Amino acid sequence: MNLVPDYGRSFGLWRAGAGDTWRDYTRHAFVKGLGDGTLPRSSFIHYLIQDYVYLVHYGRAWALGVVKAETMAEMKICAATVDSLMSQEMSLHVAVCAAEGISEDELFSAVEDDENLAYTRYVLDAGLSGDYLDLMAALLPCAFGYGEIGLNLAETAVADTPYREWIEVYAGADYQDICRNLGGMIDVSLAQRIGDEPEKSVRWGRLQKRYSRASALEANFWSMGLRGELRGKLRSL
Amino acid sequence: MNLVPDYGRSFGLWRAGAGDTWRDYTRHAFVKGLGDGTLPRSSFIHYLIQDYVYLVHYGRAWALGVVKAETMAEMKICAATVDSLMSQEMSLHVAVCAAEGISEDELFSAVEDDENLAYTRYVLDAGLSGDYLDLMAALLPCAFGYGEIGLNLAETAVADTPYREWIEVYAGADYQDICRNLGGMIDVSLAQRIGDEPEKSVRWGRLQKRYSRASALEANFWSMGLRGELRGKLRSL
Amino acid sequence: MNLVPDYGRSFGLWRAGAGDTWRDYTRHAFVKGLGDGTLPRSSFIHYLIQDYVYLVHYGRAWALGVVKAETMAEMKICAATVDSLMSQEMSLHVAVCAAEGISEDELFSAVEDDENLAYTRYVLDAGLSGDYLDLMAALLPCAFGYGEIGLNLAETAVADTPYREWIEVYAGADYQDICRNLGGMIDVSLAQRIGDEPEKSVRWGRLQKRYSRASALEANFWSMGLRGELRGKLRSL
Amino acid sequence: MNLVPDYGRSFGLWRAGAGDTWRDYTRHAFVKGLGDGTLPRSSFIHYLIQDYVYLVHYGRAWALGVVKAETMAEMKICAATVDSLMSQEMSLHVAVCAAEGISEDELFSAVEDDENLAYTRYVLDAGLSGDYLDLMAALLPCAFGYGEIGLNLAETAVADTPYREWIEVYAGADYQDICRNLGGMIDVSLAQRIGDEPEKSVRWGRLQKRYSRASALEANFWSMGLRGELRGKLRSL
Repeated sequence: MNLVPDYGRSFGLWRAGAGDTWRDYTRHAFVKGLGDGTLPRSSFIHYLIQDYVYLVHYGRAWALGVVKAETMAEMKICAATVDSLMSQEMSLHVAVCAAEGISEDELFSAVEDDENLAYTRYVLDAGLSGDYLDLMAALLPCAFGYGEIGLNLAETAVADTPYREWIEVYAGADYQDICRNLGGMIDVSLAQRIGDEPEKSVRWGRLQKRYSRASALEANFWSMGLRGELRGKLRSL
Repeated sequence: MNLVPDYGRSFGLWRAGAGDTWRDYTRHAFVKGLGDGTLPRSSFIHYLIQDYVYLVHYGRAWALGVVKAETMAEMKICAATVDSLMSQEMSLHVAVCAAEGISEDELFSAVEDDENLAYTRYVLDAGLSGDYLDLMAALLPCAFGYGEIGLNLAETAVADTPYREWIEVYAGADYQDICRNLGGMIDVSLAQRIGDEPEKSVRWGRLQKRYSRASALEANFWSMGLRGELRGKLRSL
Repeated sequence: MNLVPDYGRSFGLWRAGAGDTWRDYTRHAFVKGLGDGTLPRSSFIHYLIQDYVYLVHYGRAWALGVVKAETMAEMKICAATVDSLMSQEMSLHVAVCAAEGISEDELFSAVEDDENLAYTRYVLDAGLSGDYLDLMAALLPCAFGYGEIGLNLAETAVADTPYREWIEVYAGADYQDICRNLGGMIDVSLAQRIGDEPEKSVRWGRLQKRYSRASALEANFWSMGLRGELRGKLRSL
Repeated sequence: MNLVPDYGRSFGLWRAGAGDTWRDYTRHAFVKGLGDGTLPRSSFIHYLIQDYVYLVHYGRAWALGVVKAETMAEMKICAATVDSLMSQEMSLHVAVCAAEGISEDELFSAVEDDENLAYTRYVLDAGLSGDYLDLMAALLPCAFGYGEIGLNLAETAVADTPYREWIEVYAGADYQDICRNLGGMIDVSLAQRIGDEPEKSVRWGRLQKRYSRASALEANFWSMGLRGELRGKLRSL
């Protein structure tokens, strides 16, 4: 059983269009390990450190969304997302890592794994090369996928998984609201630029391609986490 | 008499380096008219409408600062500035304009005057072509100059100027804090990239040039305001 | 009488959509002065110096077209345009200005007039904020308009206008070929992204707006030229 | 024995600073296989296909160099590099692949491997986030490293390696001239922005880091090539 969240029309289309890639991402072994508690602590910490660096660049990409927005509503939701990434999501990482003896400065200067670098720079280039929609098609798989994962893990996780706190962040009402708001925003943004049935436009194929590739890069990110070991990852390059 | 605010070392150097251009900007006839209350209402409203559009693009440029930041401190101050522009400064404009019967949608879609367009696009290109410092050298004259103007008008304005509220925003502790924080940030950012005496580097001349040109574009913006008339400015292009 | 060139379908639509603005640009007093020979030499030289600086930034914007292209054909035509701007158009300016005792270094470092700065930075921001089509809608009015002006001046100019060489560059087969190739490219690029009748899409209004605004900024550029005087324009800022 | 080319002062500093990473890149098993002829044909073809896609984005990054240049000399060398990539290097790939029955359209739309994507998007983001120097520090390892590899393979390759043509392109006088010209350019660009001993500036560490990371991404690219198999790589995502 898999809960499919309701984050709007475009989410449904893109999710279906991504097919197996979406499944590889949202039901990855790393995700299962979070739910059944079998994920090694070293993998989780490695993931968290990399995810901190990821959020730096993902935050930059949402800020690029402000640069590329064409309506006040778009500017505001992108700015609010930058703010929530920096004040909420990154704080969770800082707190958990602090408990492991890793400081925020160490997090910020951790060496980026290649899978991490590949993903965020791909997203940023979607913004440099394309318009607001191209950027969003590359930015949203992360937001939507974590929402779907959180929702499903909240249903299926074992009671005593040590990753309960992580699950509750993404299953929580605040995060689910963000996903629904972003889903509503992209429906409007697509309609304003392409029309009410954007999936019938000649442009749709390219947007789907970006959404699918970003989803595949998310799956790689989990694999990087699984492989991860703490030692030696904090030295600067 | 003119109060020179203390927004840090780089501010002092750039302000002095801009010479007459800084004076033309901060002691412009429009500024005097705000203080002695002689500024025609139509000029003020025209200015406010244009300034709303200005803040849209100025906000985009601060968001580009998040994209180009190299430290967490830089990311945070840029993101906070985007937020304060959108939630505070623009709200003032919306409120004052609403009292004149002008809606926020009309503000957003007002036709940009050429002086307005020239200024913000120059700033954005400073970010596209250069690095964080280049962008900041073009962004900061607006922040610092309004701080200096607010401080001076608070001292010299006639008691019953109808522009008292405007003056108090920029003379107020909140805005002055922003200026001091930005001044502290740029001192650190320059030191981290160029060294403790950036004015002795071969790069300084280009940074001063950007600061001075942005200051000149600010003076033009006031002149545009003076010339302004309400009628016909709200039609979309 | 006015010759309307055949640079393709989109050109015709955009040209018509720009209405009086297109007329203000292509039949400007500066243009008439080139044709009847009454344009003061100092205005022409001022224009040429500013146009050299313009071509620097216009070349940067075409290079941004390479960054934003989505097909090999788009990459190639943008790269070829950068090359022809730098190796041909700018060389004409260098040669004419050299005869007046102005070196290429002086040209490169000439102080940009505000009208000049406004125009090119607007175009560059069209590329930063939008996609390839947004950039093209802002880039093409210069190319197409000069083609139309050259064609018309070749028909109507007096025999002994001192601006014959300038006219022949833009009326010449090489330049007219460039315009036709660019017109063919944009027809294809629009079809690939929006469909065969892009003017019926919800996006068309924004593209037309960019085309029209860039055309208006071209008209301002001529006015700047008319006003121009040589003296004092070569000092650096 | 290893020939160290003379591409200027900054090249020498960056090469030494990259240490083992430079060695991993320039003496990779893939490189050895080109020289002794043991590289499987399928690996070479896989590499060539990926390298074609690489050159598309690498060309975009050099075009971004035109956008970010601050002198006419910088604009010209970047534009010339874009041109030589598209008209020469890519043509070689097209010709070799055509002989294997792979068309240019297939090349352009080949699915990018993750290592490929990671590298070029990292370079493009160096340009988006930083200035001309940041972009160059990420762009030059490819140019310089291929020069060094070509030079060494020309000395050491077995007579009958099937990769002789490839070697001669990079060992050839044309390519070596490009490397020397780029090396001379970056020496001047560094001096103009940082001073005559840029390695003593606080900024040097960040530039070295970019150079080293891009070199590491080059090594990964070879590994991707080794792993490569032709089948299934041409389907679009």
